[in-house]
Amino acid sequence: MARKKIVTDRAQLEKLAPMLKAPLKRHVFVCTGKSCSQVGGREVMAEFDRILTEKGLRQGKESKGRDPMGEVVLTECGSIGFCSIGVAVMVYPDGTMYGQVTPEDAAEIVEEHLEKGKILRRLVLIELPADPAKSDTLA
Amino acid sequence: MARKKIVTDRAQLEKLAPMLKAPLKRHVFVCTGKSCSQVGGREVMAEFDRILTEKGLRQGKESKGRDPMGEVVLTECGSIGFCSIGVAVMVYPDGTMYGQVTPEDAAEIVEEHLEKGKILRRLVLIELPADPAKSDTLA
Repeated sequence: MARKKIVTDRAQLEKLAPMLKAPLKRHVFVCTGKSCSQVGGREVMAEFDRILTEKGLRQGKESKGRDPMGEVVLTECGSIGFCSIGVAVMVYPDGTMYGQVTPEDAAEIVEEHLEKGKILRRLVLIELPADPAKSDTLA
Repeated sequence: MARKKIVTDRAQLEKLAPMLKAPLKRHVFVCTGKSCSQVGGREVMAEFDRILTEKGLRQGKESKGRDPMGEVVLTECGSIGFCSIGVAVMVYPDGTMYGQVTPEDAAEIVEEHLEKGKILRRLVLIELPADPAKSDTLA
């Protein structure tokens, strides 16, 4: 099948998506799937949104109160797989999967992990190995 | 507010979520938000599911044809922010954000990036810096 023509010019891409110019450091995902929603997924997502936006960390449109040059992308996601011990929150590229997260934990994850770089051991369920193929990909 | 009591015993956590025992390497997210859905988000998600499941890479329940000991978690997610140049696909912990992904690209991303560790330069929009605080978190 013929490959769809895509935009490759960087200036044009940045015009289409100004986010590409932001000094992004981390991508935080909050599960709002069925099981996590039953134990507060949407409330956890709302709390991360509130805190990251207030601190000027959440990348996004100014019209939404966010910072186009913010360093954290916040995204909701579907089921991860540890549905009985949610709410699931992932911090990447660190590779940290947190479980049993409550709205009250959001501030601590932001302050300790995102701002100080210290993983919250009491909530960690899984840590992905660092850079599974970095040596290859940067070769 | 009193902190909710959480499960901390590892054996009990693994019983509640067998996924915790899988040798996970990567987490792939496909955006199925509004804009990405209009340009094939669900089809891209379906293609990653098909290919990863066929190759025995997708972690999940055997009843769904997946491998409980698979090394890739596949999750759909909401809007990332570069909505006009989707479909967005993220590969973590590598920190790679792909854009303009079509169902036809899924096989190449799996074979080149996930299996061989080679990033597909033609589709990369953003690369997060490696391990933003690894030196702190492992100290």
